[in-house]
Amino acid sequence: MSEDSELIEQVIEQPDSLIISPPSDSSSSSYNHIQPFVYLESTATTQTNHNVLLILNQKITIDLISLWKKCEIIVCADGGANSLYEYFNDNNHHHHHENLQRSDYIPDYIVGDFDSISPDVKTYYESHGSKIIRQSSQYYNDFTKSIHCIQLHYQLNHTKENWFESIDEVDGLAKLWNGLNNSSDVVVDIDITIYVLNAIGGRFDQTVQSINQLYIMNEDYPKVTVFFITTNDIIFLLKKGVNYISYKNRLMFHKDNGSSPTPTCGLLPLSNKTPIILNSYGLKYDMRNWKTEMLGQVSSSNRISGETGFIVECSDDIVMNIEIDV
Amino acid sequence: MSEDSELIEQVIEQPDSLIISPPSDSSSSSYNHIQPFVYLESTATTQTNHNVLLILNQKITIDLISLWKKCEIIVCADGGANSLYEYFNDNNHHHHHENLQRSDYIPDYIVGDFDSISPDVKTYYESHGSKIIRQSSQYYNDFTKSIHCIQLHYQLNHTKENWFESIDEVDGLAKLWNGLNNSSDVVVDIDITIYVLNAIGGRFDQTVQSINQLYIMNEDYPKVTVFFITTNDIIFLLKKGVNYISYKNRLMFHKDNGSSPTPTCGLLPLSNKTPIILNSYGLKYDMRNWKTEMLGQVSSSNRISGETGFIVECSDDIVMNIEIDV
Repeated sequence: MSEDSELIEQVIEQPDSLIISPPSDSSSSSYNHIQPFVYLESTATTQTNHNVLLILNQKITIDLISLWKKCEIIVCADGGANSLYEYFNDNNHHHHHENLQRSDYIPDYIVGDFDSISPDVKTYYESHGSKIIRQSSQYYNDFTKSIHCIQLHYQLNHTKENWFESIDEVDGLAKLWNGLNNSSDVVVDIDITIYVLNAIGGRFDQTVQSINQLYIMNEDYPKVTVFFITTNDIIFLLKKGVNYISYKNRLMFHKDNGSSPTPTCGLLPLSNKTPIILNSYGLKYDMRNWKTEMLGQVSSSNRISGETGFIVECSDDIVMNIEIDV
Repeated sequence: MSEDSELIEQVIEQPDSLIISPPSDSSSSSYNHIQPFVYLESTATTQTNHNVLLILNQKITIDLISLWKKCEIIVCADGGANSLYEYFNDNNHHHHHENLQRSDYIPDYIVGDFDSISPDVKTYYESHGSKIIRQSSQYYNDFTKSIHCIQLHYQLNHTKENWFESIDEVDGLAKLWNGLNNSSDVVVDIDITIYVLNAIGGRFDQTVQSINQLYIMNEDYPKVTVFFITTNDIIFLLKKGVNYISYKNRLMFHKDNGSSPTPTCGLLPLSNKTPIILNSYGLKYDMRNWKTEMLGQVSSSNRISGETGFIVECSDDIVMNIEIDV
């Protein structure tokens, strides 16, 4: 990419179809490889990560079952348990599978201050084996409490299955996790991928706090990868440096309706470290030395030309979204 | 507020109910008075502004009719016309009014590149008198094109009703508007309030671009006030300085379900000018000299204690959302 190193800012309109090779391994620095759509493959090609499904409180509008089957553990944050329960109502037209039984889809953990979960739902899942962890602290939100639970599960569950018993009901998860971190020799550095439903698209302060936590988690726990899945798109973080985003083909996440073969995407500079300089290879409107920041230019309604992947180089962490339209 | 001028950052937990007086007029600088819920009042108390309804492309999930009746002109951005059309389908359970006739709710303008509007919908509204303005430019999005249309309407319509005829079909609205601005003597400085449906909560790049435009419009056209209305909340900008947000009572936008009388809100530092220092008077978790920025602390899941209003003083423009739950 050295030919693009001059500092002329430009946008190059590309053809709808491009083949982009992965970044050269000969480069001195490694790149960040992101496979956002592995969860949509019928047989996952790479299974190096521990996959987790985290359900927050909004109506579930995606095909939950395919994602569920890809995940090792399932966590509901407070009212997310209501959402899961209601997904199996007979009149729910969002699921694409026949003969679904609610009792076959029991979350491993339910976490939160429990101001949203209905008593009947709580009783149902408790009687079916879910581990119920009440945390009343108002200093952490339900998303953060769930992240603590997920990380503690992978640190502690293999030695003590009921690791969460007898913790403080106010903020025991946070205390336990912070305690582990402060005695750093006991924390095992494990790759975890968390698919989060309903963190984006509800109340706007919750959406923004979810994005804030996405940035903060990448700074604090770079081995934890988070994908927010919404009715419309998938949202994740590109890390400072070179990012290679790959997939089998674009039909995985974008139906070919005859009019446009290019899925829509955006690059969203929502951190406190801006402006960010972008270079992209494989987008419809490829950018060279392109300065982006809020109150300036933001790449929305861009499109993906790369048939099996594309590359984005960024001067600091930046949020990306890709439309899912299948 | 001089007693809070020391630079100690703190959060004060307030009672659920407070009476907050408007900021003192004796202060040397004036304050920004925001009345987000005037549109919900059966009889609007203040009608100094020109009210506009702008509908973007997503399913309409709010009570459209009450808002429609408060507005002087209605604009649909491209597929927003489909959303409006579908709102009047018989099987739509979101409207709360009987015997709605689609033909009684015809938008004044339909604007966009028209890659989303269905031909039948376009024909229907054209034959019922809507003014159809095609703008194919991919440099401006449908939201921005609509804003140009609204501003030009208020500048030109009183002298020439078909002001938009014979403009360039690529980016004629932008050229006309920029031309007016460059000959600044002809631009009349008019207070306009734009209620925007469906700008937030769909594809995430569109959500972020809407927020970006909210900040930019306030810099460029401070007399244009924008409220984004979603299924969950109302979103608007607090301006640098003192903001007084007032309403008749909290029941206007938050039903009293017995458990919590305090509506939820957030203060969201999404601009490129951060950190922002906040002082608030009338929130459940009132802030003093509170530093907020992305990747730092963000006030989400805060609540409103002020019975008829509250005050937020901010060191720069910041986005606010208030949950609507009626």
